Amino acid sequence: MAEFWLDGGFVASGPAVGADDRGLLLADGVFDTSLVLGGRVFRSAAHLDRLAAAAARLEIPVARADLAAALDALAARQQNGSIRLTLTRGPGPRGLGYPPEPHPTLIGASAPLSAAAMFAPLRLALSPIRRNETSPTAQLKSLAYLDAVLAQRAARQAGADEALFLNGVGRVACTALANLFLLTGDELATPPLDDGSLDGITRRWVLAHAAGFGLTARERPLALDDLARGSILLTNSLRLLAPATLEGQDVPGDPRIAAMMRGLCAAIEAECGIDPRSLGAVIRPA
Amino acid sequence: MAEFWLDGGFVASGPAVGADDRGLLLADGVFDTSLVLGGRVFRSAAHLDRLAAAAARLEIPVARADLAAALDALAARQQNGSIRLTLTRGPGPRGLGYPPEPHPTLIGASAPLSAAAMFAPLRLALSPIRRNETSPTAQLKSLAYLDAVLAQRAARQAGADEALFLNGVGRVACTALANLFLLTGDELATPPLDDGSLDGITRRWVLAHAAGFGLTARERPLALDDLARGSILLTNSLRLLAPATLEGQDVPGDPRIAAMMRGLCAAIEAECGIDPRSLGAVIRPA
Repeated sequence: MAEFWLDGGFVASGPAVGADDRGLLLADGVFDTSLVLGGRVFRSAAHLDRLAAAAARLEIPVARADLAAALDALAARQQNGSIRLTLTRGPGPRGLGYPPEPHPTLIGASAPLSAAAMFAPLRLALSPIRRNETSPTAQLKSLAYLDAVLAQRAARQAGADEALFLNGVGRVACTALANLFLLTGDELATPPLDDGSLDGITRRWVLAHAAGFGLTARERPLALDDLARGSILLTNSLRLLAPATLEGQDVPGDPRIAAMMRGLCAAIEAECGIDPRSLGAVIRPA
Repeated sequence: MAEFWLDGGFVASGPAVGADDRGLLLADGVFDTSLVLGGRVFRSAAHLDRLAAAAARLEIPVARADLAAALDALAARQQNGSIRLTLTRGPGPRGLGYPPEPHPTLIGASAPLSAAAMFAPLRLALSPIRRNETSPTAQLKSLAYLDAVLAQRAARQAGADEALFLNGVGRVACTALANLFLLTGDELATPPLDDGSLDGITRRWVLAHAAGFGLTARERPLALDDLARGSILLTNSLRLLAPATLEGQDVPGDPRIAAMMRGLCAAIEAECGIDPRSLGAVIRPA
């Protein structure tokens, strides 16, 4: 069952946020999504730090302890699933200008993971929408998510599952939901943040641990054509996805990617006490 | 006093929207802002048509009659001011995919116009954030407005009032809040919609009526350097703004722009029965 947290306590799923909340009216806020297993959030400190940093970037005042309290309360109720924390600048008068005395809104929500979510192969389609690497929102999990919504909708209407974004200068940025890695030879490359990638927590894990799987991880610009030359891995905090096709062309798998995915599962088990592959109907094994 | 309308009736400004509303979580929605004078909305049919078309573009089902009912109810209470209608895709489960049976949320809000809003001269600063002309959100008044929020914030911190956006290929697009026109010789030029401009209702009025003021209106791409060669007019549904400076350099005024602004005021008076310049403290005269 989904649970909702608002400004310090659990609430029913009814009306929660004011009609004058800038998160609703202007996408003026940030969020974070994390994985909870056995009531423990994987990499919770990194998630809280990143969300607090994003709030600071937007000058939304919030105590990290309040973020942590919401995360802990949601994790205690939702033993296995996902948690989303959403922080908005709160209500404000008409116009774009920041309210002089903001009263931010903190919303938490948890949900069970769908059986099909983690590890599922997928078909990737190129989006005509470019990722705007000049916008701070490209590197924050901001509420301005409509491009991703529309890109994924178009991908699904075209018979695919997920949308691939290039940025404004034509380099690979990310997908609607995930960071992207390309494995060619021993190199596991991912676009630099300046190309419009989010600083994903799982992306960080892969960059830090790839060497243990015989791979040289590297941030470097990727062209669309590069993607035809290797295996692809997509990562976010809830999924490890090896695309089966890109624009209808088969993407080869690689046992080293599969090994690294197993390694991440082992790291999750070490931190949360549960191997996500063991959850059967909750999380489908690779 | 500000008034709030939610799904068919007036509400207090307290909790109104669910914590699972996609407008809040994903900026998955559209809005419209219009001018009400004497209880009548200027160009109400055009505003309702544009909002209904934007909803259709996002596949958000809504009856135009419901949009009109909200607009009428708000206009009856807020005789002189602004009205914003916000339409979201409503609540949905986790993830980007459209809910199969959407229950959209329609929110209305009205507010008095501030005395400083209409006709005020302003200082324009170039934003480092580009307008993403490849995104459908560039041509819709979508809820994904955080770029404009951040661009205006940066402009204000730099001692200006409003941010100018170039698009991804370096052409002039618009400002954070308005469409832009450039007057050089007898030509009044504005960026084409494909360059990342919103299809503004006042922009349409200017394109349709410029000839009556001795000007040849035209949509054509504009470079940043072009803006140093003429007079600038910014338009939205609540304002007609002649920037005083651009990046600290004086922008010359032009009596033909002032005449056209008076002409628009006369058109508003003809439709609403009130000349906005007559409202004194409510709307400052030019």
